Amino acid sequence: RIDGTRLWDSLMRMAEIGPGVAGGNNRQALTDVDAEGRALFAEWCAAAGLTMGVDAMGNMFARREGTDPDAAPVYVGSHLDTQPTGGKYDGVLGVLGGLEIIRTLDDMEIRTRRPIVVVNWTNEEGTRFAPAMLASGVFAGRHDLDWAHAREDAEGKRFGDELERIGWKGEEEVGARDIHALFELHIEQGPILEAEGRDIGVVTHGQGLWWLEIRLTGKESHTGSTPMHMRVNAGLGMARITEAVHRIAMEHQPDAVGAVGQANVWPNSRNVIPGRAVFTVDIRSPDRAKLDAMRAAVEAEAARIAADLGLGIEIEPVGHFDPVTFDPGCVGMVRAAAERLGYSHRDIVSGAGHDACWIAGVAPTAMVMCPCKDGLSHNEAEEITPDWATAGCDVLFHAVIEAAEV
Amino acid sequence: RIDGTRLWDSLMRMAEIGPGVAGGNNRQALTDVDAEGRALFAEWCAAAGLTMGVDAMGNMFARREGTDPDAAPVYVGSHLDTQPTGGKYDGVLGVLGGLEIIRTLDDMEIRTRRPIVVVNWTNEEGTRFAPAMLASGVFAGRHDLDWAHAREDAEGKRFGDELERIGWKGEEEVGARDIHALFELHIEQGPILEAEGRDIGVVTHGQGLWWLEIRLTGKESHTGSTPMHMRVNAGLGMARITEAVHRIAMEHQPDAVGAVGQANVWPNSRNVIPGRAVFTVDIRSPDRAKLDAMRAAVEAEAARIAADLGLGIEIEPVGHFDPVTFDPGCVGMVRAAAERLGYSHRDIVSGAGHDACWIAGVAPTAMVMCPCKDGLSHNEAEEITPDWATAGCDVLFHAVIEAAEV
Ligand SMILES: NC(=O)NCCC(=O)O
Ligand SMILES: NC(=O)NCCC(=O)O
Repeated sequence: RIDGTRLWDSLMRMAEIGPGVAGGNNRQALTDVDAEGRALFAEWCAAAGLTMGVDAMGNMFARREGTDPDAAPVYVGSHLDTQPTGGKYDGVLGVLGGLEIIRTLDDMEIRTRRPIVVVNWTNEEGTRFAPAMLASGVFAGRHDLDWAHAREDAEGKRFGDELERIGWKGEEEVGARDIHALFELHIEQGPILEAEGRDIGVVTHGQGLWWLEIRLTGKESHTGSTPMHMRVNAGLGMARITEAVHRIAMEHQPDAVGAVGQANVWPNSRNVIPGRAVFTVDIRSPDRAKLDAMRAAVEAEAARIAADLGLGIEIEPVGHFDPVTFDPGCVGMVRAAAERLGYSHRDIVSGAGHDACWIAGVAPTAMVMCPCKDGLSHNEAEEITPDWATAGCDVLFHAVIEAAEV
Repeated sequence: RIDGTRLWDSLMRMAEIGPGVAGGNNRQALTDVDAEGRALFAEWCAAAGLTMGVDAMGNMFARREGTDPDAAPVYVGSHLDTQPTGGKYDGVLGVLGGLEIIRTLDDMEIRTRRPIVVVNWTNEEGTRFAPAMLASGVFAGRHDLDWAHAREDAEGKRFGDELERIGWKGEEEVGARDIHALFELHIEQGPILEAEGRDIGVVTHGQGLWWLEIRLTGKESHTGSTPMHMRVNAGLGMARITEAVHRIAMEHQPDAVGAVGQANVWPNSRNVIPGRAVFTVDIRSPDRAKLDAMRAAVEAEAARIAADLGLGIEIEPVGHFDPVTFDPGCVGMVRAAAERLGYSHRDIVSGAGHDACWIAGVAPTAMVMCPCKDGLSHNEAEEITPDWATAGCDVLFHAVIEAAEV
């Protein structure tokens, strides 16, 4: 078993870097505090005798040698960056859980045949530099390196420049590593495990996703002096499409979700009919056919609503991943570990995208989930109990050592 | 007849102060460019031999003496401040139209029995310091002077301090003037006159208005990992209330309008279900019973929608004016002037609030409207033709001299 107190202490120490305004964290990718968090993690890795490799996307790989120098390593980790109003566990638990495994192996003086590499993927959140899971996506060959380096934040700063500025642009080629298996521990970010009183989610699938940015063009005009039948109201169009997205998701139950998270109107003035609205639709399903059907329905409905109101419409896909089926072998190791350790568990679908979802395309991969209070995440109030963290890390430990072969 | 070329030249000269980014103006109340615009107007007034009075709200009163020193003056004017992305005519035409009347009277060497006062009301637009029509509202006794001075802009700067800073806080008591009659020329800010090919709108009524700020509280959570039935989506609530406002306005046709102009969600992130939404409803009608019925319907529907979705709701009225019936005598002078001058005209309801609407509560008042292209206003693309401006000012001229008695 791992040392739950040591794991918790490390989580709390990391949370001191880039504190939020309400008890959580604001440690966005490639900020000065991201660099500080990386330095602390690197210091801990060095203290544990690990060798650090850094690639051209800033992904960090801390390696513990195995007894067989030729064996491909087992990878374990997640991400240290957070949302602007993020929690202390989303991502961080998976990285520091990986480190805790190393520390436990050292305590127990266990050597594995395969090397174990603890990984911190750069910019999982994607709030500063879209899209999410950017660096693991480049690693898995889903994005081009130059394209990723050219991503810009809201101030027009480029990913590549900022990575260099904070001192974490490595020399290593991205995606060149041979991965025997990868395990990612993550908080559920949803309410299911807590509601059912389970310790562990054995993640069998990851939902697929489409993000559609919709831009409506109407006519700015005065709310008071424009008769109802002469309006071209982009805000009303956004409202109707928001409702349509909800309805379409409900029509595809179970195993489907849909919402509009980002919504902006111009000029956003009390007495001006919005002449422009820009918003993003987020639709997901673990079922590829359902996901495609939902996208088609949203696009058709949006076009119909726009035509009805006389609005111009542009729809641009700004994010996508396919549904993922995790490796049955790795998933089996996670389920067996939970069973062996006596933790209550259930199979679960990951509602959110994770670095592991990209890696699943290039190596055998699985995920372990632990509950989070009230399903809250992407929120400074995100909370877990030390017992949940311990259980998750215990299961991760057993799965990793099974894969790494003692 | 007035000198249309001179009027147009003055409009274009004023538009050079506080230019916008797309051909219009950004000359918001109590900014440095507002001070510049006031200085230019004051210079023109001085050149025309007018005496300037300034009250404690910064309202400017430029007086041409009449032959009877004891007669109450006729007032004519509007406002020089603009929206942040405003046009060159909204307000400005009414002030410079007033000045043009003085210049024409001077050219013709006409003396009126009553003095004529050209007025520039401070902060009509209310975008920097809410509410709109603030200074005419204090003049008419609808707002308290101290309350008005304490209004704050988005940066927390106070109206009273900013008025002093730009040098236009006068000594004169607000509202102490005796007004025989007031006339305001304004662009329609709507599409009716242009669509019907009329030169002049004879404004008989002003719509009443309610602005309701609605604040919804849901629960921020992950768009991917929160099942549909566990969501408390404030953005969806905003969408449904936006649609309800539209429907309620349609149910009260004709003579009713309704829209949501301002709409914000938090944290406004693609993969977070909005936990908070704040938006403003703008409903109007010239019919008091309809206006009250609409407000009741919006409040009831909003409460029902919030309850359905499990959202917290607060509704706060943040703006109001009653429907206005303009003085039949003054309105008759406007109609007679249009008739006499051979301009095509129709009676019209003012869809927007104007300084004249407040003054109508304390003195005989009327308004003259001229068309504007495509009904556009509160938009840098706002446009009128020199002929429309000339016709409007001609009618204003005739109404004012009838009231001021030649
Ligand atoms: N885990 C997580 O929040 N990933 C970001 C991408 C997503 O919205 O699923
Ligand atoms: N004329 C004008 O736009 N006034 C501002 C108040 C309103 O929205 O009616």
